[in-house]
Amino acid sequence: MTTTMNARLLKLRTLLKIKKLDAVLVSSIPNIIYLTGFTGFSKDEREAFLLITKTKQYIITDGRYSEAVLEKITHFNLLEVSSQNSIKNLLGKIIQKHKIKKLAIEEKNLTLYENKTLFDHYNNIHHCSDIINSLRAVKGSNEIKLIENACRLGDKTFDYLLKEIKLGVSEKELALKIEFFIRKMGGDISFPPIVAFGSNSSVPHHVSGNQKLKKRSIVLLDFGVRINNYCSDMTRTVFFGSSTDELKRMYSTVLEAQNLAIQQFNNLTMEQLGRGIKAYKIDETARDYIISKGYPTIPHSLGHGIGVEVHELPRLSPRSTDIIKPGMVFSIEPGIYVPGFGGIRIEDLVVIQNDKLKIITHSPKTFIEL
Amino acid sequence: MTTTMNARLLKLRTLLKIKKLDAVLVSSIPNIIYLTGFTGFSKDEREAFLLITKTKQYIITDGRYSEAVLEKITHFNLLEVSSQNSIKNLLGKIIQKHKIKKLAIEEKNLTLYENKTLFDHYNNIHHCSDIINSLRAVKGSNEIKLIENACRLGDKTFDYLLKEIKLGVSEKELALKIEFFIRKMGGDISFPPIVAFGSNSSVPHHVSGNQKLKKRSIVLLDFGVRINNYCSDMTRTVFFGSSTDELKRMYSTVLEAQNLAIQQFNNLTMEQLGRGIKAYKIDETARDYIISKGYPTIPHSLGHGIGVEVHELPRLSPRSTDIIKPGMVFSIEPGIYVPGFGGIRIEDLVVIQNDKLKIITHSPKTFIEL
Repeated sequence: MTTTMNARLLKLRTLLKIKKLDAVLVSSIPNIIYLTGFTGFSKDEREAFLLITKTKQYIITDGRYSEAVLEKITHFNLLEVSSQNSIKNLLGKIIQKHKIKKLAIEEKNLTLYENKTLFDHYNNIHHCSDIINSLRAVKGSNEIKLIENACRLGDKTFDYLLKEIKLGVSEKELALKIEFFIRKMGGDISFPPIVAFGSNSSVPHHVSGNQKLKKRSIVLLDFGVRINNYCSDMTRTVFFGSSTDELKRMYSTVLEAQNLAIQQFNNLTMEQLGRGIKAYKIDETARDYIISKGYPTIPHSLGHGIGVEVHELPRLSPRSTDIIKPGMVFSIEPGIYVPGFGGIRIEDLVVIQNDKLKIITHSPKTFIEL
Repeated sequence: MTTTMNARLLKLRTLLKIKKLDAVLVSSIPNIIYLTGFTGFSKDEREAFLLITKTKQYIITDGRYSEAVLEKITHFNLLEVSSQNSIKNLLGKIIQKHKIKKLAIEEKNLTLYENKTLFDHYNNIHHCSDIINSLRAVKGSNEIKLIENACRLGDKTFDYLLKEIKLGVSEKELALKIEFFIRKMGGDISFPPIVAFGSNSSVPHHVSGNQKLKKRSIVLLDFGVRINNYCSDMTRTVFFGSSTDELKRMYSTVLEAQNLAIQQFNNLTMEQLGRGIKAYKIDETARDYIISKGYPTIPHSLGHGIGVEVHELPRLSPRSTDIIKPGMVFSIEPGIYVPGFGGIRIEDLVVIQNDKLKIITHSPKTFIEL
């Protein structure tokens, strides 16, 4: 555990050096988890900061967490916030002590208010969001194993779920079954499961509701697992009762769009794959194919990285400037959505590892009629 | 539904007038829920903004949510973000159209990056966090009913839980039982339940772990319900097996500290209660009593408001400048924590309504030995 964490700090310090920074203030919960392994801080309130200098690493938190931090985050120095020692004061002391001139912060996480109260007298703040996020985009082999582990539980959940898709069950009930199953297996959900019946499936981020399953309905299932801090994400669209030719055509178009995106990788040489491939090109392949078949463009990006968070770098979208490299784990999830009629999405996670693209979600993608 | 929402917008506009503001940009999820009733947006990613001018209200979101918004947020005008229409452009158009000069934003929610990208060419931004939070602190009678409803399910959960506290059960298992019970009853948890056995109870925000219940242990249970968008929160500390005189003395000190805080309200006249009471005074009463009995000071505040969020205004803490007024719902939760030995906390929710303080969590507070 500590070995992994120290390796991450080492990588981070190399990045600090490259970017000519003296230190970085880490505030976002996923980055705190990534660098400490500790998951106890609330996502809803600011309860801790990490300050990583060239030589030391500090965790700033209050008395409620001191005991837990001393026990579980042994590779960090604890700075305890109290009424006598504000975060601003503690931070100021370290900035002075280490003669920090250029400090990176997470500008996509730090609020205006925090910036104002913590840094009103510092001018050397380097606004920066992607310093740790870019580290996180490329996974180590142990991280890939953890994501594969989450995917495996996702696949088990899908197996189980197929038996629970019955006439009259509601979207919410199925969403709850997904969650309870995952929790009973020792995991957690990585986001609220999306269960969409019939025309609800045309809303890509549909909120599972009280609608009950009728015969001859689309059933779109989009859910993920979080286990040991790592996430999975998968979408399958199945049919309750016999479907129509139009739905079959939509389904095979989505599946073929996904295949074409995946083939892009398979057509590369080892060298090309090692250098990386432009993310927007992958998005384009799937998107253009769907449009060429007369369907509307995908109203979301083709995919996203995944790891500690369910959405990470890289982005696979038309405007993405990201490069997909070995070690990256991401989703490929084309979809066709026809408002008022229905939608179909197929989403798998893939990883670039050992010179090839490997699919790590294994639930069936044959046209399933239940 | 829409009547309630329109009443809230009306109150908000009165506040805009008082503060001489032309509009407010709302970005935080609890405030979006408060003003729209819609709970579909992710807490983890920015998916929507509300812009409320003197005469109109807009919701800015992307195509994934258009269908849901048109159906469920009928009292707002939808502005759809797309690759052609960035949030910045949409916002700029409305700012021009309504000649907005002074725009409030949520400085405790908006990130530095958002501020930079959305407002780089506007100088009239009024940084402001508490404009809606202060509205939310005073509850309407329907909101109080919803919180009482959440408390009722919390009480049922505690009843159920007492039967599940058995030799060998782990903290995590009990935490999961709390959650499953609440979810099966149609609610959700308002925060991850804290279950702390033995000396773990001395960590106020202990993360429920794999520790198994042994004989003669403290069992601290802190959990809350969220149902119909409103939260409850309650802590009880019970004993598994027979306890000691020292634990009994600690328990009665905490209980008496809570009683003394509550009595502060009961000793007020109707007029005094109507004018409000300084929150820090309530904190002081309980805190000083605990210290007077030779225990360490409470390492957290005595209480917090609750509503759409589990932590809202008012704050009951030594440095709070908040005034407690009729309509406010908040916790009173003194505690004694002795590192390595154990902790005791008793938390109830109360409301100031009909000229008196009413306790709305009803689980027993007698010294329970299981």
